Amino acid sequence: MNGAEILLRTAAEAGVEVCFANAGTTELPIVIALDSVQGIKAVLGVFEGVCTGAADGYGRMAGKPAMALLHLGPGFANGIANLHNARRAGTPLLNVIGEHATWHRAADAPLTMDIEALTGAVSGWQRTNASAGHISGDVADAIAGALAGQVASLIVPHDHQLRECPGAEIIGARFSFAPIDGREMERAAQALSSGKKAALMLGRRALRKRGLEAAARIKAATGCNIVTETFPGYMERGAGLPRVSRLPYFPEDAIAMLSGYETVVIAGAHDPVTFFGYEGIDSFIISRNQEKIQIGTGGQDMVAVLENLAGSLRAPKGTAMDDHIFAPLNRPGIPAGELTGEKVSLVLAALQPEGAIIVDEGLTTGFPYYQIAAGTPPHTLLTITGGSIGYGMPCAVGAALACPERPVINFQADGSALYTVQSLWTEAREGLNVKTLLCSNRSYHILEMELERAGITSPGPNIRSLVGLDGPAIDWVKVAAGFGVPGASVRTAEEFAGALGRTLEEPGPFLIEMIL
Amino acid sequence: MNGAEILLRTAAEAGVEVCFANAGTTELPIVIALDSVQGIKAVLGVFEGVCTGAADGYGRMAGKPAMALLHLGPGFANGIANLHNARRAGTPLLNVIGEHATWHRAADAPLTMDIEALTGAVSGWQRTNASAGHISGDVADAIAGALAGQVASLIVPHDHQLRECPGAEIIGARFSFAPIDGREMERAAQALSSGKKAALMLGRRALRKRGLEAAARIKAATGCNIVTETFPGYMERGAGLPRVSRLPYFPEDAIAMLSGYETVVIAGAHDPVTFFGYEGIDSFIISRNQEKIQIGTGGQDMVAVLENLAGSLRAPKGTAMDDHIFAPLNRPGIPAGELTGEKVSLVLAALQPEGAIIVDEGLTTGFPYYQIAAGTPPHTLLTITGGSIGYGMPCAVGAALACPERPVINFQADGSALYTVQSLWTEAREGLNVKTLLCSNRSYHILEMELERAGITSPGPNIRSLVGLDGPAIDWVKVAAGFGVPGASVRTAEEFAGALGRTLEEPGPFLIEMIL
Repeated sequence: MNGAEILLRTAAEAGVEVCFANAGTTELPIVIALDSVQGIKAVLGVFEGVCTGAADGYGRMAGKPAMALLHLGPGFANGIANLHNARRAGTPLLNVIGEHATWHRAADAPLTMDIEALTGAVSGWQRTNASAGHISGDVADAIAGALAGQVASLIVPHDHQLRECPGAEIIGARFSFAPIDGREMERAAQALSSGKKAALMLGRRALRKRGLEAAARIKAATGCNIVTETFPGYMERGAGLPRVSRLPYFPEDAIAMLSGYETVVIAGAHDPVTFFGYEGIDSFIISRNQEKIQIGTGGQDMVAVLENLAGSLRAPKGTAMDDHIFAPLNRPGIPAGELTGEKVSLVLAALQPEGAIIVDEGLTTGFPYYQIAAGTPPHTLLTITGGSIGYGMPCAVGAALACPERPVINFQADGSALYTVQSLWTEAREGLNVKTLLCSNRSYHILEMELERAGITSPGPNIRSLVGLDGPAIDWVKVAAGFGVPGASVRTAEEFAGALGRTLEEPGPFLIEMIL
Repeated sequence: MNGAEILLRTAAEAGVEVCFANAGTTELPIVIALDSVQGIKAVLGVFEGVCTGAADGYGRMAGKPAMALLHLGPGFANGIANLHNARRAGTPLLNVIGEHATWHRAADAPLTMDIEALTGAVSGWQRTNASAGHISGDVADAIAGALAGQVASLIVPHDHQLRECPGAEIIGARFSFAPIDGREMERAAQALSSGKKAALMLGRRALRKRGLEAAARIKAATGCNIVTETFPGYMERGAGLPRVSRLPYFPEDAIAMLSGYETVVIAGAHDPVTFFGYEGIDSFIISRNQEKIQIGTGGQDMVAVLENLAGSLRAPKGTAMDDHIFAPLNRPGIPAGELTGEKVSLVLAALQPEGAIIVDEGLTTGFPYYQIAAGTPPHTLLTITGGSIGYGMPCAVGAALACPERPVINFQADGSALYTVQSLWTEAREGLNVKTLLCSNRSYHILEMELERAGITSPGPNIRSLVGLDGPAIDWVKVAAGFGVPGASVRTAEEFAGALGRTLEEPGPFLIEMIL
């Protein structure tokens, strides 16, 4: 057994089933070992941003890490932007990066880089493997780090991958949550039951079904509202699940929403801040005059934290199906006429199947969707946690591989789709059930909105050049066909509803270009 | 005048003419200033790897920096792989990265990253701007750093871009080469005139016409051979220019080529090392038994160094047109039948126009081209200096913008093209005269060769999945059309010659998919 085989056996025994890879010569022993070690399926991404974005989507859905196998510093660098989103989502994710043989480092060969400087920018756990004998322990530690909701990056020199280690031991990954902090629970329970107007702000694991159910009990017992951040990594929602208000993107709206609360208890979410700094507006959305309590920040299981808090509040189990707490089934009808962001959202909400995974990178076009889809059949929503565009296309790939029995709908802005357009090829190769709804507004519309905020009403040629995606307009149906994914182009709500209805009836990838 | 205007005025006065950009809210003041300050044309890349790769191609051709305008850490991260190539090429390149407002940093907003950790991995010069009053000096220093053959990265907080600075001074960029080291020259002259079998190994600026002419004088005076590294960043070559032997890619061939020399004088090239570490083969290609002399390593102008060395050797100016020193005109004929790497290279060498810029990322398909093209009309060759794939597509964009009067031929491997395929859109938008010759062998063939070296003769399903680009084969003509670039698909040498001949007669972008 060589180092590469030890690496994969350790990962497989810890539950890793998929390796999203774009490998080179320095990872060749691991590529070869993928066929001698059982249990890990290799999936090729033809650009590393696809691999890391897919590993993010997989980790969010599966709740356990996929492995991304990356080639030296440049390969890792190509994956950083989507690892940034994964880091902000708290996704469990394992990177393995091949490095030159230790004895070759001093040669400063063309591909040599400071890989550790790059991994450090996005990893909660990182290590450079020191010898083949350490590989199993390193992989076990990395997976434990990943299971804590982190990007874990292990750099493995080529010579260590090749080294034979007869009789090497395979080490198991050990991970456990920290114990609940009783005083923290008491403080939160007091604040919520004090009669003050309160919000319970959920993030990360708190937005999974069990966390939401505990939050519903807390709401029933205290009257608090349930809210979440602007870009939650993963949430279960729809008819029969608790209503959750989402913080708006622009600061004035976000402040308007939260300023009504005297107390905000934050469970797994980031302290809410404005997305960018706007002169004259405080970065922190919860003001100093409001009480802010963060719970479960010390590595606890947020589901257990919320269940404990519900218990402290003597909230009965099995909350009654109150429409104030739970969303009733409420599908919109299908609208007519030229497509707008609202009509796109209405059609999607009208037709999305129960159990769908909705990957939302619709950005400005998708703004109305969250409200409109509140009462659709139960589904999972994934959003762009780190704001690093190009997350949606590969995230859909990873989600589809994690949940092959569920349809994945990627609600996707055109400017963002261009960043990782190569994802379409992996959808075609793996036959993934991903429906890409491509919002083709042919501009970076968020920048147009920011220019308007900055008072620019008649932009000059350089501004227009940097904000417009027209001239030429991209023909998304041709691009998708080139990568092996069939598609259709629509301009009206009726056409969109027809195309979406038809493609949802058969599995496999499909792209609908919605010209807005 | 605000900070953003000061930034652009300083850059424009130092000679910056093009800004390859993908900007966001944190760069908005600079985007706006691009229309109020004269002299800098904004070019949109719809992915940052396009922007930095284009800035690399531009800098190689123009010999002065373009500016890449990038959005925070994730935007910069997307550009790192091609900045790595630029760093290895010694390209003058100016990055400007927008950062959150200084007072917003502590909020740890979603897009917040450690940008300096990222810039540090590829920049020879870097700084985070400390105030609007420092912007002009910072830009001047950055451009001076770039002109020394470095990637220079300046991080500018959003509030500093916005800040008004009435009466601010615009500071000029000052750059000068270091003085020549007389003792170094003496030592090199002695080694070359000692009668030992010698090679003069050129890199960077030494491969420009004046450097080559000086090298030809040295060869005429001493009988040394002129060689270059495996992946030179820029070289002028063809009929009437000095012959230069290029170091082969695989180590056995490279050692075979250089082992015949008792002395190697290195002028501007890296100390030659194997591309990867191969067990049993030394990293350094020049052995300890060979004399190795590096000249001009202290920031000197390599052209002046070579001219000085030629003077020390009393080499007459105006070397006689000896076929042993200069390549005679020698165009191959057009071959017939199914395309191979050799036939592709023969057709290209038969038809490439005088003054063409050949961007070579043909990799395995392109291996025969260098030899075959030695006697074609004078042209410029750019190669993948850092081994980070995805350089060719954007490099061609930048070269075409630097030299709009010259045809650019991008000899491009399919696996690599996928990394920065979005470059096609910028070609279409800017109407660039770039002809993409797409080598579609539908595999990472270099990995197939490495697997063969590793003794893997019957690869399993995971290996095949990670090495093959078939299933589905990419339809490059459709992909190009989707991005607005017309194309054609060819399978024989005759078809390829016909398509290449036709497209060279009219300007504008075109893609020829060569199915191998």
